[in-house]
Amino acid sequence: MKKFMDKDFLLENDTAIRLYHEVEEKLPIIDYHCHLSPKEIAENKRFSNITELWLYADHYKWRAMRSCGVDEKYITGDGSDFEKFREFCRIMPYLIGNPVYHWSHLELQRYFDCDLIINSANCEAIWKHTSDKLACDNFGAQDYIRNSNVVLLCTTDDPADDLRYHKQIAESGFETKVLPAFRPDKGFNIERRGIADYIKTLSESTGVEITDLDSLCRAYTVSLDRFEALGCKTADHGMDNYVSFAKPDAYHANEIFKKALANDGRDISEEELALWKSQLMRFFGLEYVKRGWVLQLHYGVLRNPNKTMFEKLGPDSGYDTIHAKNCTADIAALLNYLQCNGALPRTIIYPINPSDNAAVGTLCGSFCRGDGSMMPTVVQGSAWWFNDNIDGMIAQMRSTGNLASLGCFLGMLTDSRSFMSYPRHEYFRRILCNLIGEWVEKGLYPNDFDAVANIVSRISFENSKNYFAFEI
Amino acid sequence: MKKFMDKDFLLENDTAIRLYHEVEEKLPIIDYHCHLSPKEIAENKRFSNITELWLYADHYKWRAMRSCGVDEKYITGDGSDFEKFREFCRIMPYLIGNPVYHWSHLELQRYFDCDLIINSANCEAIWKHTSDKLACDNFGAQDYIRNSNVVLLCTTDDPADDLRYHKQIAESGFETKVLPAFRPDKGFNIERRGIADYIKTLSESTGVEITDLDSLCRAYTVSLDRFEALGCKTADHGMDNYVSFAKPDAYHANEIFKKALANDGRDISEEELALWKSQLMRFFGLEYVKRGWVLQLHYGVLRNPNKTMFEKLGPDSGYDTIHAKNCTADIAALLNYLQCNGALPRTIIYPINPSDNAAVGTLCGSFCRGDGSMMPTVVQGSAWWFNDNIDGMIAQMRSTGNLASLGCFLGMLTDSRSFMSYPRHEYFRRILCNLIGEWVEKGLYPNDFDAVANIVSRISFENSKNYFAFEI
Amino acid sequence: MKKFMDKDFLLENDTAIRLYHEVEEKLPIIDYHCHLSPKEIAENKRFSNITELWLYADHYKWRAMRSCGVDEKYITGDGSDFEKFREFCRIMPYLIGNPVYHWSHLELQRYFDCDLIINSANCEAIWKHTSDKLACDNFGAQDYIRNSNVVLLCTTDDPADDLRYHKQIAESGFETKVLPAFRPDKGFNIERRGIADYIKTLSESTGVEITDLDSLCRAYTVSLDRFEALGCKTADHGMDNYVSFAKPDAYHANEIFKKALANDGRDISEEELALWKSQLMRFFGLEYVKRGWVLQLHYGVLRNPNKTMFEKLGPDSGYDTIHAKNCTADIAALLNYLQCNGALPRTIIYPINPSDNAAVGTLCGSFCRGDGSMMPTVVQGSAWWFNDNIDGMIAQMRSTGNLASLGCFLGMLTDSRSFMSYPRHEYFRRILCNLIGEWVEKGLYPNDFDAVANIVSRISFENSKNYFAFEI
Repeated sequence: MKKFMDKDFLLENDTAIRLYHEVEEKLPIIDYHCHLSPKEIAENKRFSNITELWLYADHYKWRAMRSCGVDEKYITGDGSDFEKFREFCRIMPYLIGNPVYHWSHLELQRYFDCDLIINSANCEAIWKHTSDKLACDNFGAQDYIRNSNVVLLCTTDDPADDLRYHKQIAESGFETKVLPAFRPDKGFNIERRGIADYIKTLSESTGVEITDLDSLCRAYTVSLDRFEALGCKTADHGMDNYVSFAKPDAYHANEIFKKALANDGRDISEEELALWKSQLMRFFGLEYVKRGWVLQLHYGVLRNPNKTMFEKLGPDSGYDTIHAKNCTADIAALLNYLQCNGALPRTIIYPINPSDNAAVGTLCGSFCRGDGSMMPTVVQGSAWWFNDNIDGMIAQMRSTGNLASLGCFLGMLTDSRSFMSYPRHEYFRRILCNLIGEWVEKGLYPNDFDAVANIVSRISFENSKNYFAFEI
Repeated sequence: MKKFMDKDFLLENDTAIRLYHEVEEKLPIIDYHCHLSPKEIAENKRFSNITELWLYADHYKWRAMRSCGVDEKYITGDGSDFEKFREFCRIMPYLIGNPVYHWSHLELQRYFDCDLIINSANCEAIWKHTSDKLACDNFGAQDYIRNSNVVLLCTTDDPADDLRYHKQIAESGFETKVLPAFRPDKGFNIERRGIADYIKTLSESTGVEITDLDSLCRAYTVSLDRFEALGCKTADHGMDNYVSFAKPDAYHANEIFKKALANDGRDISEEELALWKSQLMRFFGLEYVKRGWVLQLHYGVLRNPNKTMFEKLGPDSGYDTIHAKNCTADIAALLNYLQCNGALPRTIIYPINPSDNAAVGTLCGSFCRGDGSMMPTVVQGSAWWFNDNIDGMIAQMRSTGNLASLGCFLGMLTDSRSFMSYPRHEYFRRILCNLIGEWVEKGLYPNDFDAVANIVSRISFENSKNYFAFEI
Repeated sequence: MKKFMDKDFLLENDTAIRLYHEVEEKLPIIDYHCHLSPKEIAENKRFSNITELWLYADHYKWRAMRSCGVDEKYITGDGSDFEKFREFCRIMPYLIGNPVYHWSHLELQRYFDCDLIINSANCEAIWKHTSDKLACDNFGAQDYIRNSNVVLLCTTDDPADDLRYHKQIAESGFETKVLPAFRPDKGFNIERRGIADYIKTLSESTGVEITDLDSLCRAYTVSLDRFEALGCKTADHGMDNYVSFAKPDAYHANEIFKKALANDGRDISEEELALWKSQLMRFFGLEYVKRGWVLQLHYGVLRNPNKTMFEKLGPDSGYDTIHAKNCTADIAALLNYLQCNGALPRTIIYPINPSDNAAVGTLCGSFCRGDGSMMPTVVQGSAWWFNDNIDGMIAQMRSTGNLASLGCFLGMLTDSRSFMSYPRHEYFRRILCNLIGEWVEKGLYPNDFDAVANIVSRISFENSKNYFAFEI
């Protein structure tokens, strides 16, 4: 019987234990995609209680609570902070097997030095313990990041953002590099209400009057330059629903864009939308290649399928779903088009449906250029969102091992809105060490500690440093 | 080396052994979805030999025999009962890894107190042993149910059924509650020959002349009342092929229904069918909400793809296939429509393709209302049919754990036509205890026996009792 | 800690060890589908260094190298043989978890008696050791086959092939039976440039002037007879992209074919292509049934999605992808049509997407005839191509166990272009023994050594011998 979540948590063999404690534990963290607020980092935001920290904005936890039938009053409603935490503690035992169970305990242990098990019996003790800690000096946003040994992180930023907080952080002398990442989704989704307003905002932010495809691209170039000036190395594209490729055609794309502006997104057909998105990908692909940026491609989410709750709570409230339509052939067509037009940058593909692992794993290999860079051109990303759990991470890593090169995998990112999510890197590293260790102990890989130490540190740190060309 | 299928079968760690023998073994069974014949229960049906019991109607075993190339004469043909059993014994060793292998041995052990291994060498001994037992007094349908500690079971019944056998059983003083479950599939499948006759039958059974959508709904209401009066708590919908949503529209639905009646199901387009089914789901959803029933949604089966064998043997003869077209987006649209119209009851979704586990797992979460009921609104059901095996059950439970709340899972049901299928609950419980025990022993969950005992008894009994509001 | 790849490689329990060493290790190999060149076998082709042997034509290794960002110069380019091997050694450590890692070490061990680990440090030593060995007498193509205990292999041959090398091999007294296998893909793909030329070649090879469907079929009959005369027992169909069924119709098929000939494949719509392929499957199905051949159906590959590299390197260069569109319903329709028309031979289905395992596993069962042959009519094949690794093989075998009869599974084939790929049979057998052994040791199957020895030898040898009716 192993102790619950002790120092050898998830490490089930000697090689894993050694790999983790001698190598991985000491490595700094690069978090190349997250949703932290630059403003809150800049302002060194503080939280007054554990509910504010854990339950004000975490749609993973909201979803888990709803799955246990908790009253919405205590999730996003007007229940008191303590009541909300009480309900969270109450259902916690039923989240057996859920990553939220482990994440929450890791966060308690690492940030609050608290080994209590989260349940109704310990609710008050945890509330008190964490409230006391949160009142201490070293419990600001920057402290969480610093104490987690994060050397670099990339936020997620709209092209219209003026990046003032990034400048402020850079000038503040904060030890961790906080880079912007370019996320132009809003310009892709021209079928949605509000597109006209958004384009106006982008126009103002860039000083370019946007009336057609051409001026849009000029505005984007201004924005891209602004991002690059602040050290941006990557763009992140969230392609909702699924990828649908249509051969770019600037003439029609321009007509479609002007129609979208005129009608504020009304009456855009699926074909038009596909053409528009493909056209825009061409533009951005060329820009990213020129600037040496990495393209991160997230796709396959059915957003806000529950309209009742969407109207109440808006997006990102724990109501999204995996859209299981497979679109590998369309992604292949898109990558091929970009490749043929010199517009295929280094690309990380994140499928959301774990059943797509094999298809995506082979797809990536079909667009590796063999360019002598000693890294793959196109690579599958770490298990994303709903798959960010033990099973999902192992499935992705085994698949990457089988179909590509696990030694060139880029490892973990948090994708998180929470300042306390860094233990997810620890979680990942433990799982990685255990997998590699198991292979060694079973005689499936040579018992050469330096060789496997090299592999795990590549995956946890060096590969992403090299792939993104981060200057650290 | 563990002994073959002994008392600790499937229990691979101490926590699992304790959980099973101290908690699960003693819990009564609720079988909330099966296909037992109420008539055969009422008449306390007896079987004269093991072939009659095992091979007359079990399409799982037929399929397994065909997969070994047994002559159909000894499957559904005119081979003698003994010959059929002899062939079954002969191929049994080749079913290594198949649940039928374990189920059959469990049934021999539990109902016949016989530890023999099923193979050619033991064929005659088993035949003799079981024939002797079957001749004893306590080998009627009710005995199997009673001796399996079943406190409640739900059969599967057509709206046109007069439920006389349910009344008879209820009045007989039989210890097990035998409730009807409402299965209105025939009224959904208006594109099939025989629909006109079926509607006539429904009309006669309910005393409502059915000529249009409106009168159909009135007839259904009569039937729903009849079911409710006998304690019905759930409706089961088998949505063949896949779910295709089209926005309900009473006017057109009525036209489509009248056309189906006039042409006996000919010339109904796929669009018309989708609209009709969606319209009917709206009606039933409202009724189920009003009555507090649980909707069980089975979908994704390609029925009778082999026309040669369908013409010979009819449906449910072991020739169905997983229809792998993913329709998560359509189910989402359907659930959303029901939700927006106050017509979304508590719902259990059973996908048939295990590759859909993740998509369905997230879909359920997207329709949990957070209603304070301390149970999820929409929940993924136990691994169904082709997935009702060790791998399938573990995959579903791990997926539910990762994506929702395993502690709120509803556990096992047999979905079976056989009176001897209750050891499948035992099979499930052993697998569940082993999974939970493994997590505890690995330090992934606290070593708190009461807490995990509570979880397994919730999953195996209490959750379904509460979710369906069964009065036991 | 187990030693790296020693004699008990992959064997993790005593039963597995005994099964492998007492039974499997000694069994000869039947390789019922591979891509070896009959010419090279006939000529007893030799290789002068390890690069020629391993890296001249192996698209698995090319893909792996590209996944590590090796310069194409050292993959398919003009790097020297030694440089190419050096790059291969350099990235080898990063292929942890990849079957190429194990295959390569097995080949070194088995054919070169060399236990060195493949990495940069050992590069020169391995180069020297293997070069010395390759200069020895017994290192010709026939030696590899003979020394691997291969009793029979089936190559892959075009209907237009004159099979001269097969005759030559047969007359040479070579101990291994080398049979042709019929692969008529080119006649199916009438939408591709070059179809007119191909038909001309087929015409010349068969002496039948081909102008329409009827004369095409007569030409094929000549070819089928030629194959049959040389002992052919199987046809292999590679159905690119996915299977799309349309009801055969000789009149339109004939028109489509004539159009394809006239336009050299231009302007063939998807509907026309589906009809044509289905029509041709009908013809071949009838022929295979008449001749008692086995149909092998490979499908689901998206070929050459990267046009840039396709133009440089042509097909089969490591740039294919899993086409994840599920087409189970179309395959079902095709099999049903064949079944209804007496044109369904024994058939092996090989899906390429592991997420289709369950759907295909049930599909096969839906077309098993129960014909008394003691083998399934339709059966899922061994994990194919991208899935030919530990995880993929276990997933397929567990799925076949759950859904059909693992004891009637046909076991391994190499599908390889390399003379050194026979250790993949060893790899498979070790994995199989371990799986079966694990079940026995866990008490999931009786501890009856003869019974499990029978199962593993059926799977590794006897089942394929019987299913294909090979005369050995």
